[in-house]
Amino acid sequence: SFYIGIDIGSTAIKVALADADGEKVASRVDPTGADFRANAVRSFERLMTDNGVRRREVRYILATGYGRRLFREADDSMSEITANAVGAHRVGQAYGGVATVINIGGQDTKAIGLDDDGHVNKFAMNDKCAAGTGRFLDVAARNLEIGLKELGDYHHRVQGMPATLNSTCAVFAESEIIGLLATGHGKPEIVAGIHAAIAKRTARLARRVGLGERVLFDGGPALNTGLVAALEEALMRELIIPPEPQTVTAYGAALLGRDIDRSERALAEEELP
Amino acid sequence: SFYIGIDIGSTAIKVALADADGEKVASRVDPTGADFRANAVRSFERLMTDNGVRRREVRYILATGYGRRLFREADDSMSEITANAVGAHRVGQAYGGVATVINIGGQDTKAIGLDDDGHVNKFAMNDKCAAGTGRFLDVAARNLEIGLKELGDYHHRVQGMPATLNSTCAVFAESEIIGLLATGHGKPEIVAGIHAAIAKRTARLARRVGLGERVLFDGGPALNTGLVAALEEALMRELIIPPEPQTVTAYGAALLGRDIDRSERALAEEELP
Ligand code: SF4
Repeated sequence: SFYIGIDIGSTAIKVALADADGEKVASRVDPTGADFRANAVRSFERLMTDNGVRRREVRYILATGYGRRLFREADDSMSEITANAVGAHRVGQAYGGVATVINIGGQDTKAIGLDDDGHVNKFAMNDKCAAGTGRFLDVAARNLEIGLKELGDYHHRVQGMPATLNSTCAVFAESEIIGLLATGHGKPEIVAGIHAAIAKRTARLARRVGLGERVLFDGGPALNTGLVAALEEALMRELIIPPEPQTVTAYGAALLGRDIDRSERALAEEELP
Repeated sequence: SFYIGIDIGSTAIKVALADADGEKVASRVDPTGADFRANAVRSFERLMTDNGVRRREVRYILATGYGRRLFREADDSMSEITANAVGAHRVGQAYGGVATVINIGGQDTKAIGLDDDGHVNKFAMNDKCAAGTGRFLDVAARNLEIGLKELGDYHHRVQGMPATLNSTCAVFAESEIIGLLATGHGKPEIVAGIHAAIAKRTARLARRVGLGERVLFDGGPALNTGLVAALEEALMRELIIPPEPQTVTAYGAALLGRDIDRSERALAEEELP
């Protein structure tokens, strides 16, 4: 039997498949697009097909993320904070445990404090201001005419000092970036400056939940090695970057579905005559 | 003899010419452009030429605005808060006086409380967040493919309810505007929603300096009659919109230059043997 978690975010749909033991079997990431309900169904079906899993073998489907309520194929839905915590706790076991999770998403940034059992004990989120979220990376990359995936490479090519971005606002930062380009600053220096600015904001958010020794960083921007370096500098510690950082929350949702399924079955067995 | 005030802002250069009595003779508004120093010199020279004023007839030139220190032709420079207060106080005499000034600029919004002599007694500014500044109007107009000058007309064409903008962030509001267009909302309704959002923020700023009975609204966005209507609704009072609301600060700078010149001359006369 299998469990599927689906995380429908503002920019990407993430699906994860777990087996009876809760081991992650596979995952995938697709763009959310305009018709995110149809795209979510497609992602979910492809995940099964690609892994030779039939619908009736999937015992529980749990949805999370901002589009979770519109995904009617799910058995239930849960907040992405809970799902992220569960996923990070499990993934983090290979690293000796996780005390703090930092997640940068397409339009929000979250910091979650975990207790030893992986339960959420503190939580902070910025979803009001685009500066410091993944959205600012999108905007900045577009201004620089750089692909999102190239940001890390540019960052590591810095020769001099990173450029200083004075604006704390993403809109004003756009003009600043254009000004920096016009005055001959190199793209690597500007990219490093952008990463430093986002890292600074993220570190401030993370400190609000109290920073543990072992900090896991997930979400799409965790694939950006430049941002990882900047965040490690701002937090003054090494970060745990799990493989497939984008699908930690979807995997957590699959694990949560497995828990629910198992307790429901336990209950049903007790009730047998 | 004449006095010139020049207000070098982020989007426009405003110059005003005052005569010996401090009456406003003329003013002009030009785009700041890339080389704002050269453009400032050009605006200033055109103002003189167009009004048949020779350089030696100008007794004092006072610069204000964010580019004020780079305009070397000026005799002195002063903050735009002081200049705006002085200009609004004088302009407001025709309306029975002014207690509060609201200025929306290209990249900031200010609220100034004036005492009966026109001195600044309280002051609040937002220059950190683009939402609620003129910049947001630029961005929104671009998203709607509407000229800035057309915003007022669109606003007054509203038939149903203004659209609701939930984002308090200009970046997230951009996506919301695109979403509202995609779901068939009319441009007039969206424009009215944008004006309501900016008015709400501006009203909050204005209340921080204490709202007097007579409130003057100046800066370029005061030409937008839709925004004026929204702000009047948010503040629950009629606003004083001076003629040429863009050049109130430049005019104030000219008046300040006249004051300085007169006191310097008074001093010089005293010192004569
Ligand atoms: S500071 Fe800029 S990015 Fe942040 S809420 Fe304001 S407009 Fe948005």
